[in-house]
Amino acid sequence: MKTMLYPPQEEWSDLCRRPGININDLENLVKSIISRVKDAGDDAIREFSEMYDGFAPVALKVEEEVIAAAAAKVPEELKAAIEMARLNIEKFHLQSTSAIKVTESIRGVRCWSREVPIEKVGLYIPGGTAPLFSTALMLAIPASLAGCREIILCSPHGRNGEIDPLILYAASVSGVTAIYRVGGAQAIAAMAYGTETVPQVYKIFGPGNQYVTKAKELVQTDGIAVDMPAGPSEVLIIADKTSVPRFVAADLLSQAEHGPDSQVIMLTDNRELIDLIRNEVILQVKQLKRKDIIIKALENSALILLKSLDDCIRFSNMYAPEHLIIAVSDHRTLADRVINAGSVFLGTYSCESIGDYASGPNHTLPTNGFAKSFSGVSKESFMKKVFFQEVTPEGIRNLGPAVELMAEAEMLDAHKNAVSIRLKSLNND
Amino acid sequence: MKTMLYPPQEEWSDLCRRPGININDLENLVKSIISRVKDAGDDAIREFSEMYDGFAPVALKVEEEVIAAAAAKVPEELKAAIEMARLNIEKFHLQSTSAIKVTESIRGVRCWSREVPIEKVGLYIPGGTAPLFSTALMLAIPASLAGCREIILCSPHGRNGEIDPLILYAASVSGVTAIYRVGGAQAIAAMAYGTETVPQVYKIFGPGNQYVTKAKELVQTDGIAVDMPAGPSEVLIIADKTSVPRFVAADLLSQAEHGPDSQVIMLTDNRELIDLIRNEVILQVKQLKRKDIIIKALENSALILLKSLDDCIRFSNMYAPEHLIIAVSDHRTLADRVINAGSVFLGTYSCESIGDYASGPNHTLPTNGFAKSFSGVSKESFMKKVFFQEVTPEGIRNLGPAVELMAEAEMLDAHKNAVSIRLKSLNND
Repeated sequence: MKTMLYPPQEEWSDLCRRPGININDLENLVKSIISRVKDAGDDAIREFSEMYDGFAPVALKVEEEVIAAAAAKVPEELKAAIEMARLNIEKFHLQSTSAIKVTESIRGVRCWSREVPIEKVGLYIPGGTAPLFSTALMLAIPASLAGCREIILCSPHGRNGEIDPLILYAASVSGVTAIYRVGGAQAIAAMAYGTETVPQVYKIFGPGNQYVTKAKELVQTDGIAVDMPAGPSEVLIIADKTSVPRFVAADLLSQAEHGPDSQVIMLTDNRELIDLIRNEVILQVKQLKRKDIIIKALENSALILLKSLDDCIRFSNMYAPEHLIIAVSDHRTLADRVINAGSVFLGTYSCESIGDYASGPNHTLPTNGFAKSFSGVSKESFMKKVFFQEVTPEGIRNLGPAVELMAEAEMLDAHKNAVSIRLKSLNND
Repeated sequence: MKTMLYPPQEEWSDLCRRPGININDLENLVKSIISRVKDAGDDAIREFSEMYDGFAPVALKVEEEVIAAAAAKVPEELKAAIEMARLNIEKFHLQSTSAIKVTESIRGVRCWSREVPIEKVGLYIPGGTAPLFSTALMLAIPASLAGCREIILCSPHGRNGEIDPLILYAASVSGVTAIYRVGGAQAIAAMAYGTETVPQVYKIFGPGNQYVTKAKELVQTDGIAVDMPAGPSEVLIIADKTSVPRFVAADLLSQAEHGPDSQVIMLTDNRELIDLIRNEVILQVKQLKRKDIIIKALENSALILLKSLDDCIRFSNMYAPEHLIIAVSDHRTLADRVINAGSVFLGTYSCESIGDYASGPNHTLPTNGFAKSFSGVSKESFMKKVFFQEVTPEGIRNLGPAVELMAEAEMLDAHKNAVSIRLKSLNND
């Protein structure tokens, strides 16, 4: 973990760079996986499953009985925790429902827009060392609240040929309509183009390794919508002399355990805090199971001393962190000045873990500076707007002549004619 | 224009295919333009300007005096029409402002989200045969209402070395903060990565030819947001025996004049209407200036007879048209059943031209079936959400134990520790 004391402002934008990601050689491999799935469907999925996982699943679609049986494997206490998280996520994601408001632009011209659920969506949940069932909750609950008709989930099966029961359970309590034993780039291709078993969807959500990420990027060029571009996870913490060093250190470490490419940054206006936190990090990391990963992530990370909290929030807006913890005494004032961030945690007791699992806001958030233009996943991510306009004879009399003039100026006379022919008929009435 | 009588449902999805677009050879050329702009900035832009337009603009940034002088070239009558359109667009795009609502997920855990404008956005307005100033209005007005700090506009200069005065005028009345004489793929690259003169933006909007479209697709893979994927423009009209054939024909033709790759479709449950409309199309097309373009577009187009209006709306939802005109008597009932469409025009007098210019809703809409998952541009397209959560000691006491359990089940013990260390400190108090 680097320490930087009062870096000059000209260097800030360099400090905001994320650890580089190598992408070149990946593209052709993922392109070939996608085109094979497009051509051969289920057979291609089985081939890739055998190639990468050692064997192909017996059936791609997870059977009802298997999903039901998964519930029996989840301890009751954990079920209660999941239920608490589910309710909070639901409560938060419900908040944004907006009623249809009709605007009368001019007499006789009524306009409105209606939010409509995307009919078919696909969720990807990675496999790997830990079963990320919390992501299944975070994606399926807003999809379900939005009213999506088909919410399918793809996840790689483990060595026992089955998806982790926690993922199956979380999916079953949050509205997923079908689950498939498919992982990797081939899962993204299957959901983007459809196979005999896996239905085609219109938008794909969820995290994944670099193959999955590249596949999402590539299917986007065919107009398949995706949640957002992906990058390694990160946190930025703003701390002052009132912050509790062992809390701040624990938060830095909780983010660092995500992966060796994670980045954690602390900004402070208090010089003493730097050493206090460094010591706490060294102390706490020894106790943690994923310390090898954490130590690698800390190499990309920094404790940065700036002149003032004002500088801290300006730096943070330039960095645009996925997670921003404001652990200073006057956190509400700084909160008002946040422009670029995915999710913000205010005050000493708001640790990122709370938001990762259960406070309510989504944990699928823009990384890599993408918070400058992207939002985290919300119910709206599973909906789209349709515009409506209704024009009466009075309306076209009021607005038609202006449209004729503008269409003429754009040299589009068929556009003009569609108005003129109506105005003429009204004048003849 | 093809006529199809009662095509069986198995054939509908083939009928929903858009005319093919050839993209393969384009990619390398556009990639090389982008990488040259990344390397050489303004010099690269001048090179490409010379190469494609015959000469490079003297200065890339349009001077204040030039913008002011443009206003003098716009006839007063057209200025009044533009002002009427501007007010309607503003009225419609204002409607969606939503207040911050705080959710208390559980006692001591408060969550909310705040909509924040994207700080820097870039608008692209194509050059070519007609000055599409209406698109400048449609993009700059919602950007301005959203509160974007920098709203820049790039457009190619004409043979006289200057951007069309109508575009300069429309930009100046709708909140654009700087205008650059740059067109094509190099304009997209300049806005995505910044040059000495053109500032980098976080999201790029606007239509363009296949070079521009490909460039938008490519910069997206670097995390630059874009409005939506692009494709040729299209309209689908649902008509019944009450529809006025010459109005329907005029609407089909107004869409067809956009380009030879446009597609226009009419669905009806009334056999006689097919011939009436075909005759009107033949009659009207002769009067139109862009008839060569229109005749080519009509080759991709069809008049389709279906069994019922119910079948018509089901077909339309499968096609997911950019523009949908429902010109039947009971248009409100059908309107309620629209799932996939960009913008919908209801009733005999709601012609697409009205929406293209002045009714209020945006005319930047999802084409090519993308209305299944994308919305048209709105004020929200220029904003993003930031999530907030504030947890008190009571909050972490209520929610902490559930988070500990879930973090443990995901094998993320540093996540668990960030909660445990806080709970422990509260218990020691």
